[in-house]
Amino acid sequence: MSYEENVRRVIPYTPGEQPRGGNIIKLNTNENPYPPSPKAERAVRELDADILRLYPDFAASELVRAIASYHGVKEDQVFVGVGSDDVLAMAFLTFFNSDKPILFPDITYSFYDVWAQLWRIPYRTCPLDEAFFIRKEDYFCENGGIIFPNPNAPTGVWQPVSMIEDILQKNRDVTVIIDEAYIDFGGESCLSLLAKYENLLITRTFSKSRSMAGVRIGYAIGNKDMIQYLNHVKFSFNSYTMNVPSLCLGVASIEDDDYFVRMRDLVVAERERSKKELTGLGFSFPDSMANFIFARHKTMQASEIFKALKEKGIYVRYFSGPRVRDYLRITVGTREQMDALFAALKQILTEGSQGA
Amino acid sequence: MSYEENVRRVIPYTPGEQPRGGNIIKLNTNENPYPPSPKAERAVRELDADILRLYPDFAASELVRAIASYHGVKEDQVFVGVGSDDVLAMAFLTFFNSDKPILFPDITYSFYDVWAQLWRIPYRTCPLDEAFFIRKEDYFCENGGIIFPNPNAPTGVWQPVSMIEDILQKNRDVTVIIDEAYIDFGGESCLSLLAKYENLLITRTFSKSRSMAGVRIGYAIGNKDMIQYLNHVKFSFNSYTMNVPSLCLGVASIEDDDYFVRMRDLVVAERERSKKELTGLGFSFPDSMANFIFARHKTMQASEIFKALKEKGIYVRYFSGPRVRDYLRITVGTREQMDALFAALKQILTEGSQGA
Repeated sequence: MSYEENVRRVIPYTPGEQPRGGNIIKLNTNENPYPPSPKAERAVRELDADILRLYPDFAASELVRAIASYHGVKEDQVFVGVGSDDVLAMAFLTFFNSDKPILFPDITYSFYDVWAQLWRIPYRTCPLDEAFFIRKEDYFCENGGIIFPNPNAPTGVWQPVSMIEDILQKNRDVTVIIDEAYIDFGGESCLSLLAKYENLLITRTFSKSRSMAGVRIGYAIGNKDMIQYLNHVKFSFNSYTMNVPSLCLGVASIEDDDYFVRMRDLVVAERERSKKELTGLGFSFPDSMANFIFARHKTMQASEIFKALKEKGIYVRYFSGPRVRDYLRITVGTREQMDALFAALKQILTEGSQGA
Repeated sequence: MSYEENVRRVIPYTPGEQPRGGNIIKLNTNENPYPPSPKAERAVRELDADILRLYPDFAASELVRAIASYHGVKEDQVFVGVGSDDVLAMAFLTFFNSDKPILFPDITYSFYDVWAQLWRIPYRTCPLDEAFFIRKEDYFCENGGIIFPNPNAPTGVWQPVSMIEDILQKNRDVTVIIDEAYIDFGGESCLSLLAKYENLLITRTFSKSRSMAGVRIGYAIGNKDMIQYLNHVKFSFNSYTMNVPSLCLGVASIEDDDYFVRMRDLVVAERERSKKELTGLGFSFPDSMANFIFARHKTMQASEIFKALKEKGIYVRYFSGPRVRDYLRITVGTREQMDALFAALKQILTEGSQGA
């Protein structure tokens, strides 16, 4: 016998490539092209290094307070974690503790089935319709819980709050998690439903709209009992997950709302311009409310375009799954980055059609 | 029915108090009284804020490389996490996946039974002897895995490597984790056993000897396969656990070995002086090789001393469990802090004996 017989074996999630280098245009992991708020920069520069020797505030009180006040909810309705992946992993572990399968779309964030596998949660995927919309009736059945992003990833499709309320009305006895990682880029949030549904949990992240993927901050908003259940599990795992720099950077980001709104609007404007440019180049895509566009070309294969772009130092994301292999997920960058992308695409598509 | 029926309910670990304030002497959570290396301070001050918008290196390569080179092991033998609690939580989940009970001492780090409960791992505790030493024979039986700290917490007792090798020889088919959170303060590490035992995992932390409790860095060293199993579970949980500031602070700390050795030696010297002072005040304690002393007084109750010290703004740790309720765990602070502690103890003990 070997120790290996007692090892939990899993197939991990594969994150997008993280190439480093000056000449790369990185449009592959939905990061924000703009730096974090200068106030956050200042906060980390002025950090008193002596406090790093002490454990951080395990309740992350200042960050929780800032988030609660920003959203107009109570402090005991906010849970924070090391990115929304940490928050979601904890939420799966805490709330999807049933023998019945949890439900999520067939095309969605590809970490959901990994967490289900890790925690040994049964799950079933519900196919999106041809336009990549959720069919709400798929969720009107017995289940162990429901999760999906809104807007969805990698499609960018946003579903109206009324549709989500229909799902909640038919699912009062299980936890429904709406993953709002991309909601700041235009969709309407489900926060207004919290008062009516005690089983609703909404997750958010600082990684996209707040330009802080490198700081690792995510959070959940729910009713007080839900947040307490989450905290009990979190405090059974690791008392101190949020380090001192992340706590101070997070608070500074929330406090600089002007900057946040300006940068967010820049990304949204560039997304809208990019939709026109991509259409002109022969791409089609579901209308995106996120900071990325999920686009297919009318003639050239996505995998070919992906490779050709990479050779030019432009990274976008390609997924090889059944219904998505014709698409590229393109993160919205700065105007200059997008212009470079469009120029590269023009060249690739011209060469492609000459070769054909 | 309610969503609450599917909730995983647990009783969380209670971390030590984290009082803030200028006049407090904090000797309750085994933090280092000295600040992190000035090089680490500089590293965070010079951080390019623009990189915070990007996801960190998910492999934490630079930090892993620094740790591997420091210990003279290969990079694929090092796993990093958000403090050693994160590393240990992952290790419990990965390696203690058996129906047989895992074994650990009855007096030990009080997070072990919390993780066992969280992951639904059966466990059995083995009583330390009267002098708080491990009886190795207790571990010569069928089990699902073994874990203990060396030096042990909260006792400070260090067990020789030869004793641990005896346990390893009788347990080749399960994972044995030696939690070396406090090893830098004087004990001999089990690192030398790694070459002989493929089932040995050693965990460490930056929180104590490296003065970085607020940064949240822990790591494990083991054989390549073990580290890969751990990484698979970690990457099924959260791709990016180590944020950019922690990666850069961690590397800077490892690189400044002179400072590390000097500060560590200061703590060790103060611990030795404190042993003499405490003995003079009527305390007895197992000989500590950690940065704390687990002491009982010959006449006054520990809970009384704990309360009286707190009233004077001096925080030590008190555990109310059966075999430990007569003891205080006192973290070794600066010479000035310890002098203030001894003066306060002298006063409390005098008043106590007058009252009696």
